[in-house]
Amino acid sequence: MMRAVVLAGPNDFKAGQIEMPKVGDHDILLQMKKAAICGTDIRILEGKKTKDVRYPSVIGHEMCGIIKEAGKQVQGFNPGDKVAIANVIPCHSCHSCLNGRENACLNRKAIGYEFNGGFAEYVLVPGIAIESGNVIKLPEHVSFAEGALIEPLACCIRGLKNAGTGFNDTVLIVGAGPIGLMHLQLSKIVGARKVIISEPIASRREKAAKLGADLIVDPMAENLHEIVMKETDGLGVDVIVVAIGVPQVVNSTIKLCRKGGTVNLFAGFAGTGECTIEVNTIHYGEINVNGSTAYKRQDYLEAAQMVIDQKVNLEEIVTHRFKIEEFQQAYEVCKSGEGLKVVIEP
Amino acid sequence: MMRAVVLAGPNDFKAGQIEMPKVGDHDILLQMKKAAICGTDIRILEGKKTKDVRYPSVIGHEMCGIIKEAGKQVQGFNPGDKVAIANVIPCHSCHSCLNGRENACLNRKAIGYEFNGGFAEYVLVPGIAIESGNVIKLPEHVSFAEGALIEPLACCIRGLKNAGTGFNDTVLIVGAGPIGLMHLQLSKIVGARKVIISEPIASRREKAAKLGADLIVDPMAENLHEIVMKETDGLGVDVIVVAIGVPQVVNSTIKLCRKGGTVNLFAGFAGTGECTIEVNTIHYGEINVNGSTAYKRQDYLEAAQMVIDQKVNLEEIVTHRFKIEEFQQAYEVCKSGEGLKVVIEP
Amino acid sequence: MMRAVVLAGPNDFKAGQIEMPKVGDHDILLQMKKAAICGTDIRILEGKKTKDVRYPSVIGHEMCGIIKEAGKQVQGFNPGDKVAIANVIPCHSCHSCLNGRENACLNRKAIGYEFNGGFAEYVLVPGIAIESGNVIKLPEHVSFAEGALIEPLACCIRGLKNAGTGFNDTVLIVGAGPIGLMHLQLSKIVGARKVIISEPIASRREKAAKLGADLIVDPMAENLHEIVMKETDGLGVDVIVVAIGVPQVVNSTIKLCRKGGTVNLFAGFAGTGECTIEVNTIHYGEINVNGSTAYKRQDYLEAAQMVIDQKVNLEEIVTHRFKIEEFQQAYEVCKSGEGLKVVIEP
Amino acid sequence: MMRAVVLAGPNDFKAGQIEMPKVGDHDILLQMKKAAICGTDIRILEGKKTKDVRYPSVIGHEMCGIIKEAGKQVQGFNPGDKVAIANVIPCHSCHSCLNGRENACLNRKAIGYEFNGGFAEYVLVPGIAIESGNVIKLPEHVSFAEGALIEPLACCIRGLKNAGTGFNDTVLIVGAGPIGLMHLQLSKIVGARKVIISEPIASRREKAAKLGADLIVDPMAENLHEIVMKETDGLGVDVIVVAIGVPQVVNSTIKLCRKGGTVNLFAGFAGTGECTIEVNTIHYGEINVNGSTAYKRQDYLEAAQMVIDQKVNLEEIVTHRFKIEEFQQAYEVCKSGEGLKVVIEP
Ligand SMILES: NC(=O)c1ccc[n+]([C@@H]2O[C@H](COP(=O)([O-])OP(=O)(O)OC[C@H]3O[C@@H](n4cnc5c(N)ncnc54)[C@H](OP(=O)(O)O)[C@@H]3O)[C@@H](O)[C@H]2O)c1
Ligand SMILES: NC(=O)c1ccc[n+]([C@@H]2O[C@H](COP(=O)([O-])OP(=O)(O)OC[C@H]3O[C@@H](n4cnc5c(N)ncnc54)[C@H](OP(=O)(O)O)[C@@H]3O)[C@@H](O)[C@H]2O)c1
Ligand SMILES: NC(=O)c1ccc[n+]([C@@H]2O[C@H](COP(=O)([O-])OP(=O)(O)OC[C@H]3O[C@@H](n4cnc5c(N)ncnc54)[C@H](OP(=O)(O)O)[C@@H]3O)[C@@H](O)[C@H]2O)c1
Ligand SMILES: NC(=O)c1ccc[n+]([C@@H]2O[C@H](COP(=O)([O-])OP(=O)(O)OC[C@H]3O[C@@H](n4cnc5c(N)ncnc54)[C@H](OP(=O)(O)O)[C@@H]3O)[C@@H](O)[C@H]2O)c1
Ligand SMILES: [Zn+2]
Ligand SMILES: [Zn+2]
Ligand SMILES: [Zn+2]
Ligand SMILES: [Zn+2]
Repeated sequence: MMRAVVLAGPNDFKAGQIEMPKVGDHDILLQMKKAAICGTDIRILEGKKTKDVRYPSVIGHEMCGIIKEAGKQVQGFNPGDKVAIANVIPCHSCHSCLNGRENACLNRKAIGYEFNGGFAEYVLVPGIAIESGNVIKLPEHVSFAEGALIEPLACCIRGLKNAGTGFNDTVLIVGAGPIGLMHLQLSKIVGARKVIISEPIASRREKAAKLGADLIVDPMAENLHEIVMKETDGLGVDVIVVAIGVPQVVNSTIKLCRKGGTVNLFAGFAGTGECTIEVNTIHYGEINVNGSTAYKRQDYLEAAQMVIDQKVNLEEIVTHRFKIEEFQQAYEVCKSGEGLKVVIEP
Repeated sequence: MMRAVVLAGPNDFKAGQIEMPKVGDHDILLQMKKAAICGTDIRILEGKKTKDVRYPSVIGHEMCGIIKEAGKQVQGFNPGDKVAIANVIPCHSCHSCLNGRENACLNRKAIGYEFNGGFAEYVLVPGIAIESGNVIKLPEHVSFAEGALIEPLACCIRGLKNAGTGFNDTVLIVGAGPIGLMHLQLSKIVGARKVIISEPIASRREKAAKLGADLIVDPMAENLHEIVMKETDGLGVDVIVVAIGVPQVVNSTIKLCRKGGTVNLFAGFAGTGECTIEVNTIHYGEINVNGSTAYKRQDYLEAAQMVIDQKVNLEEIVTHRFKIEEFQQAYEVCKSGEGLKVVIEP
Repeated sequence: MMRAVVLAGPNDFKAGQIEMPKVGDHDILLQMKKAAICGTDIRILEGKKTKDVRYPSVIGHEMCGIIKEAGKQVQGFNPGDKVAIANVIPCHSCHSCLNGRENACLNRKAIGYEFNGGFAEYVLVPGIAIESGNVIKLPEHVSFAEGALIEPLACCIRGLKNAGTGFNDTVLIVGAGPIGLMHLQLSKIVGARKVIISEPIASRREKAAKLGADLIVDPMAENLHEIVMKETDGLGVDVIVVAIGVPQVVNSTIKLCRKGGTVNLFAGFAGTGECTIEVNTIHYGEINVNGSTAYKRQDYLEAAQMVIDQKVNLEEIVTHRFKIEEFQQAYEVCKSGEGLKVVIEP
Repeated sequence: MMRAVVLAGPNDFKAGQIEMPKVGDHDILLQMKKAAICGTDIRILEGKKTKDVRYPSVIGHEMCGIIKEAGKQVQGFNPGDKVAIANVIPCHSCHSCLNGRENACLNRKAIGYEFNGGFAEYVLVPGIAIESGNVIKLPEHVSFAEGALIEPLACCIRGLKNAGTGFNDTVLIVGAGPIGLMHLQLSKIVGARKVIISEPIASRREKAAKLGADLIVDPMAENLHEIVMKETDGLGVDVIVVAIGVPQVVNSTIKLCRKGGTVNLFAGFAGTGECTIEVNTIHYGEINVNGSTAYKRQDYLEAAQMVIDQKVNLEEIVTHRFKIEEFQQAYEVCKSGEGLKVVIEP
């Protein structure tokens, strides 16, 4: 038996004991060391997201740990290896996969969804994940928390590529949650000239300052539109990343973009994301509005390499740590918005 | 004196007599042979568009004719030459021009706006237009009506490039007005596998069939969503061109696009184009929603070459012809929607 | 036992009898109906290419036939189905595969190389090929010869995409062998304004004319450079596809390209392709010189769809047909260059 | 009269006195403060480059100074303004300009070529340069030497964009002259994971280390091929910038590139750059070999902004300073290769 957070149904979860998973010849058993909670996990726990969710199951898809056991046929991995797991396994052959878009695979299988996830003492990593290159060894100097955050960083790398942020661009990031703070760092790394952050919570604005934002705006107290236009000689910014799932900001945000610029709707929005948009802004400004979902394995590898090379600061984004038994508390901290990333430990 | 349609104010226009323009040393005087009416002209005449409009002035920006007089300093053009005019002259040095987006030039000057336009016996083509390469000689076999329609064709070429339509794509064009019918032809020319047309008016659906549409849908009588999904194995189409300015179609149209596909909002929309959009469709589907405005000189040159090479059928799109004196009738035909392109003759 | 061409070593091959392959639970047994000979096959037979070649083995990688037997676990395919085979199976997880370049997979497995190929009565199609989507059903109206030529057409689609040929481009294709003639057709389909063919053999120039070339040059008798410059107002062409493996043409060909244009070295060259190039042409002209190798599964699917939709004329490219027993003759015809595609039948 | 270096013919130049230029109503007279010597200047002085060179004339195209006089019609500039000059003025309407490639304008006019250049006390900046946006005001904190080096930095930005260097790429720069050292810094700024420098001169290798190179190789003493392959798991690097005009390095350099990677021939090569290349490397590896010439005005604006924002270290690249009178010495230092950038002062 092992300890785990069991999700029995919408709004029905608690820490308890479940059977240890059976390790097949091609599988790996991961001893979880850190598993971070994602906004999507909260939506699942609350019952706001039920698609692809099994009951009962163990969720959690941002995880890092140590190999406890490697099946007989597994090559290249051994007990004791520190590894991070890319939880999404694409099918390699659907329309999306064939067209270079495996992050939107139509038949994807994922740990934390189809397979039990990270909020447990042990996690079974199925052979197809290993074969697909989804298990990455980490060196000594990478912490388990950093290892767990490779996953959301990989998503942000995908978003960065979809946004097309480049050299000398002026970038606006709407929201300085964990995701916005990763986008901030990535934008600076690709040579953005100036990164503007819009964020209503003071503590998050402070983090943004610490992590290198060039200009930080409180959209509740200041006039974001005026500030952006002043900073850009009335042209608007080159790239906007919407890192909060609040549909109401979309229309006013698009108006902050220069002609031919890009607005990446990185956030998943509440409900269907229904909102009112004045589409002539897009038409006449030749604005590109696009999206971003999950990551490709290549994004994950790049994220892991960046963490190994210590190019991003992820520790600064982790604000709370809880044991499996304390999951209810962890959940409440997440919902309160008082911290940033909340991490589960065995 | 010469005959012209004089626009005195919103909803206040009529055919009459005005002074002949004075031809400077660098200018050309064009004897108008055909000038087509664009949807934007209608919006100006009705007073729905007043931005950049002078009163009194002569509008009309799709024109073709014969050079009546060439200023002393003009080289390469002579009286008697049949020419078409690219009416938009970019500044070459604004932020848009410097970034390869002269169609969205921030300081553009245009015939039909800053300079008097085509609904007149004669049109002054200013020296900066000639220097900028906006005057194109046409051979014998190109008709004056075709010459006038090079301009909207150039806009459609810009839209095609912004939409990124390519080889083997499945394309949906919403609206089979003059613009939709040009997009239909262009999509076929770039090798689209299948072009689907959605159009409520029966006579326009017939034109679409004649001009090569692979599948034609009446969105009022048939279920467009079901038909598109059936044709694409449930994936959605690769590219959508919205060729009608009806904001209400945007949301349902985006849902017809495959993951990673593009929805080009080619039409200018009524008012600000305010409409309700479920933006999670864009987010999860990584859909690209973009726009298109006017044309680059290169697009115009390509449009002219295509007309010279007889690659597109524009004659089929012209349904009505009126004299300058009959402009009121022309205006009413346009508003009735009973025809397609309406053309003014001296 | 079954009939097959057995390659025992370089320059050592003959038609004979070999064991029937054993069909595993996930495999398919294909009854070969047509298998085309590729230039690479000739190089293998002659011993000019030995890399990845097994002795003894059966080669041949352009094939089409009917399913004779389907393993117990095979789903979606049944005996009697007419199918074409994409012979290259990528690994899905190497650096190339992860970066959207499965055609250059570092661990690819291929029928005709690692697995026995098409110059035999029956061909074993391994389960990994089926799972990877490499088996395509064909309708009644597609001939077996067309089915076999989907493979080289897929290569040409890859080349077309690498060349970036687009709408209104002027294209030069050097060589009108089977490959050049496919590139000719594809270039026209994507809307090239003008396709120029350079080919020394008269019969091939005639085929080019029949298949739609706009201008055809005999490089031995005419001055190709002068002709190209005349046709392009001294600018050079937008895109060049080098479809012959003769290193000596590369330098003079690059000089026919406009500033910023692309020269795709589609052909595999003799030996290492050593030749003298004046690289300042590339530097000052900002020419893109690139390559092309094999195809992605998506290219193959598109090629198959184009054949099904009857968009290309492949029958015109097939000039000779031989039985397995007559393979020596087929080989000699290929080497003589008197025909175009030579096809083997059971 | 004013002091200037007068080029009378190939290998025939000396410091002397010439007439002050006449300042037209639309022109500016620049008091030169610093003008840097470019490799191309050396080739002109030696007579190795004669194309577009006038005799007698004043050359020098990397310059910065103070406005001495502004013509009556000049707006926005005043005597006393510190400015840098983008020396190349595109025509805005040739085939290159129309296709977004003004850096390769077919009718370009340039200061230092068609107009007298920077190796003089005063430089006439013609009205077309001002209108075209080629004069950039600099703030106090930018030094005149930095101002002069905006021009080569702009070229390197163009090269960077042509090379397509991106986020997480491994980059090899061949040559650590002034140009290679700028490319090094730019590559780091756009987020390259690792920049490898190959340079035979020890002092330049030291500069490369100081300016952030991750790995530095002496190609004369070490095995560059082995080192690169070891650093990249045998794949080769993502991007290569050839920053030396030595044709002999091209072939071996292309072999260091990964499948699908890019080799930018940034350097102008000796003579025609004739060299032997094994083109099968390009074919099978789908390598992109391309070039780079001059800069677009947008590149120059970005370079100026980067210098204003102190993102690059240019001072470190300037090693020698000479007066106009000492030009012969400056020339000799350049030819000796003992320093990096040599700068002329009034
Ligand atoms: N594309 C992908 O693959 C991917 C991957 C991971 C996450 N995501 C999405 O990314 C989004 C952000 O994730 P997260 O973990 O950073 O969430 P988060 O903690 O909710 O951060 C969002 C931040 O934006 C702030 N905000 C709210 N209204 C704002 C406004 N009007 N203007 C500016 N900022 C405002 C929020 O403040 P309040 O707390 O006061 O609302 C919060 O600080 C989520 O929607 C998530 O679903 C996408
Ligand atoms: N991007 C540019 O540079 C550019 C250049 C030129 C024109 N445009 C824009 O392009 C648009 C089209 O121009 P046009 O001359 O072709 O106009 P048009 O004659 O109004 O054609 C639009 C067509 O769409 C039909 N339609 C209306 N509702 C529809 C629905 N629900 N589904 C499908 N079709 C529907 C219209 O029918 P009804 O008449 O019954 O409404 C009409 O037949 C205009 O908005 C114009 O401003 C843009
Ligand atoms: N990238 C890929 O994935 C891929 C796939 C398949 C094939 N290929 C390559 O494509 C190339 C062409 O294949 P193919 O089957 O069409 O071969 P092919 O039958 O040899 O055709 C090449 C044609 O070019 C002609 N030619 C020779 N010298 C010429 C010159 N100076 N100027 C113009 N034309 C000249 C040849 O004539 P002669 O017979 O007189 O020499 C021949 O007609 C081969 O190198 C093959 O390896 C590449
Ligand atoms: N594209 C453009 O717009 C543009 C603009 C400006 C300059 N450029 C070109 O850029 C090139 C470099 O300019 P620069 O001012 O930096 O010139 P440079 O001072 O000559 O620098 C080139 C450096 O490469 C070194 N080198 C020589 N052989 C080498 C080898 N085998 N491997 C590695 N390094 C080697 C040279 O050493 P040695 O001195 O011992 O040879 C020298 O240190 C020139 O060709 C110039 O024409 C292009
Ligand atoms: Zn998939
Ligand atoms: Zn402009
Ligand atoms: Zn692979
Ligand atoms: Zn030009």
